Amino acid sequence: MITRIHDGGFVTLDAAMADDLSVVNAARVSFAKQSESMGDSEVGLVGFLMRERHGTPFEHNAFRFHVRCPIFVAREWFRHRIGSFNELSGRYTELPAEAYLPSAEYVRSQTGKPGSYSFVAMTPEIAEIARDRIEEAYAKAFNNYRSMLAAGVAKEVARMVLPVGTYTEFYWTVNARSLMNFLSLRNAPTALREIRDYAMAVENKFGLTMPVTYAAWLENGRVSP
Amino acid sequence: MITRIHDGGFVTLDAAMADDLSVVNAARVSFAKQSESMGDSEVGLVGFLMRERHGTPFEHNAFRFHVRCPIFVAREWFRHRIGSFNELSGRYTELPAEAYLPSAEYVRSQTGKPGSYSFVAMTPEIAEIARDRIEEAYAKAFNNYRSMLAAGVAKEVARMVLPVGTYTEFYWTVNARSLMNFLSLRNAPTALREIRDYAMAVENKFGLTMPVTYAAWLENGRVSP
Amino acid sequence: MITRIHDGGFVTLDAAMADDLSVVNAARVSFAKQSESMGDSEVGLVGFLMRERHGTPFEHNAFRFHVRCPIFVAREWFRHRIGSFNELSGRYTELPAEAYLPSAEYVRSQTGKPGSYSFVAMTPEIAEIARDRIEEAYAKAFNNYRSMLAAGVAKEVARMVLPVGTYTEFYWTVNARSLMNFLSLRNAPTALREIRDYAMAVENKFGLTMPVTYAAWLENGRVSP
Amino acid sequence: MITRIHDGGFVTLDAAMADDLSVVNAARVSFAKQSESMGDSEVGLVGFLMRERHGTPFEHNAFRFHVRCPIFVAREWFRHRIGSFNELSGRYTELPAEAYLPSAEYVRSQTGKPGSYSFVAMTPEIAEIARDRIEEAYAKAFNNYRSMLAAGVAKEVARMVLPVGTYTEFYWTVNARSLMNFLSLRNAPTALREIRDYAMAVENKFGLTMPVTYAAWLENGRVSP
Repeated sequence: MITRIHDGGFVTLDAAMADDLSVVNAARVSFAKQSESMGDSEVGLVGFLMRERHGTPFEHNAFRFHVRCPIFVAREWFRHRIGSFNELSGRYTELPAEAYLPSAEYVRSQTGKPGSYSFVAMTPEIAEIARDRIEEAYAKAFNNYRSMLAAGVAKEVARMVLPVGTYTEFYWTVNARSLMNFLSLRNAPTALREIRDYAMAVENKFGLTMPVTYAAWLENGRVSP
Repeated sequence: MITRIHDGGFVTLDAAMADDLSVVNAARVSFAKQSESMGDSEVGLVGFLMRERHGTPFEHNAFRFHVRCPIFVAREWFRHRIGSFNELSGRYTELPAEAYLPSAEYVRSQTGKPGSYSFVAMTPEIAEIARDRIEEAYAKAFNNYRSMLAAGVAKEVARMVLPVGTYTEFYWTVNARSLMNFLSLRNAPTALREIRDYAMAVENKFGLTMPVTYAAWLENGRVSP
Repeated sequence: MITRIHDGGFVTLDAAMADDLSVVNAARVSFAKQSESMGDSEVGLVGFLMRERHGTPFEHNAFRFHVRCPIFVAREWFRHRIGSFNELSGRYTELPAEAYLPSAEYVRSQTGKPGSYSFVAMTPEIAEIARDRIEEAYAKAFNNYRSMLAAGVAKEVARMVLPVGTYTEFYWTVNARSLMNFLSLRNAPTALREIRDYAMAVENKFGLTMPVTYAAWLENGRVSP
Repeated sequence: MITRIHDGGFVTLDAAMADDLSVVNAARVSFAKQSESMGDSEVGLVGFLMRERHGTPFEHNAFRFHVRCPIFVAREWFRHRIGSFNELSGRYTELPAEAYLPSAEYVRSQTGKPGSYSFVAMTPEIAEIARDRIEEAYAKAFNNYRSMLAAGVAKEVARMVLPVGTYTEFYWTVNARSLMNFLSLRNAPTALREIRDYAMAVENKFGLTMPVTYAAWLENGRVSP
């Protein structure tokens, strides 16, 4: 099921090998034991592992996401090294003229000091002016990009002018432990609002797939093990 | 399906999220393209990626194995850092008195220099003497282990005497790229014979799950991308 | 020593803990042996390790680079997961209006198929037209960026319009094994020409710091172990 | 400086590229700023990064340790995947007959449930009996090991009988972030007592090399960022 984000993004869970029982059995192999299904003691064990920060049992699973988001969001995403990525290439492909235009309420001002900024909405007038400025810069960039391509300039050269708001897409494969770390950082009040919207979609799909693990992580204050 | 190894080991493929198409689509996202099924062009692309050492498209999958093997085999296995492990604990669990006894033809001598040893079978008489020595040392170790446990000594102390031939078990979750690297090193003529037998079982399960990738890897001289 | 690249980039080796002897001793610990200095047998051992793809002895060292390059170059760089990065933030900092303008001979056309493109210089006229297009798009982007900032729009919103040619800077800490893999891919005929220039600077500093390792890697066809 | 541990172990800091200033500058590159030395504001920044779990600035450094410890300790150590190891090989080297014999006060009993065991010293009589059992099993193992070697059996076969208490040695190269995670887990009340003694030696060397980072980590309850 595709979750649409903003004006052109999406998050899809392409495939998963993931259930709560794999967490339990990865932990129980320490005792040469195995569970057949999730009962009270299995739920309790998942909570214990989360609380005590025994992280490795949460790694025996995999989620493959297909994501479309602006480059500036992808850049934060790709900082997460425990996982696999393959992305649209501006060297090989002519990028479509599609870039993220924030809605008026997403045009925000920033106050405070680094590490404790707060962001507040701006007047509708300023928001509209900003949106115009963004559209205008996007239009110029894509126009010049295409005119260079038309003149025979290589895609990898012409794309230098494209804005970091340009949409890109990628596959991301990750295990639940690394995923929870991603969610801790990217679906947090201090996170960039745009990536947060993507992280919420990821979180929703994670929670449906590993509900006991997800509940334990929430219970533990969204701190990953 | 469980594959039995030697006198007490096994390899089981517990779960997988893996097919050749995921390799193709991870590569094709560079061009914003997608394939629905494996045809000639898809098979060709997998071969191209393998040959040119484009490794990341081979990471969007996962294999979860359940393995039982001697500690000295597990120690080589756990050196592979791109992957996840959970293992039987000698701190928490009384280890059963089960250790690997090589068959007569596996009792071998070593000649040559490090890096180019060759190993040859020994006479049946020497092989039997060696097997006796091994059994005798194992028996003493497990006997003293159990007598310490009976006297109330902690498992984590008493197990110090247990041999590295003792069977352990673990879960291993790994993607195809890291798996092929494991196979390159551990199912090779220079590898430890015992781990090679386990690696063959792993290789067999890998080949059945991702046949096009496997064929391309063989074609490429078993060098991982 | 700072190496200047293009019109605004640089590569500096900020610190290193690296010598060829560490490779030798990491390998010799297998035999409980240690060398005091690099002699013929040590040089031979480094060559053997490289040839036989024993990679781990090349990991017991560290290089810390300080790099300034365009975002589109940094994006390829950050795909290398075995290593550490910290980068200039467009959320926290107003980015200076500095972006990479390719020299005329770097304005190239692209012919052939993905995987075997060739790039050839264009006529001086077309090159100049392209450079004008790039400068024009850059100017519009930075102009609108600054006007949004002046209107109080948050840096993290306003920067959406900035081109991927904008200069960024980062620290990169990496070991020789991962560094050689970076060089194999990024200082290669098929690599993006711009990252190749940075990779050459990195390669030069690496070669001066670990000359025996570097010579062995060249000898081995620039394939990392 | 070598730190001796128990009856035959040691920890040496072989080399380091590490200071607190590198943490500060890795963080300040976000703002395109740099510090020349550690002042109050730099100390404050390190504390902030630790508290807010900004981990990456703690990765731009390296510690290379040379360690000798029993195999059962090394097995816990090698579970730490963010770092590099090379170890003594029982395939290539005849292992000396040296194994860890716990002192009487380290012969302990274990009570309670997994996850909350407590360990208490035993009577001197039982401790001595246990030490005798250990020595006896060790003697048998090394005796049979050597008799097999004398008969021409390959080292990699004969070593199967050796106990997990046998001393091994290795190089370990790691950055401060991964090191702090190691210390959180291995120098903790619930850790195996033997690895804890090694971790204390590691911690001491870390604290001397990066005192501000170390103090911030202690202040933060020994939780790594």
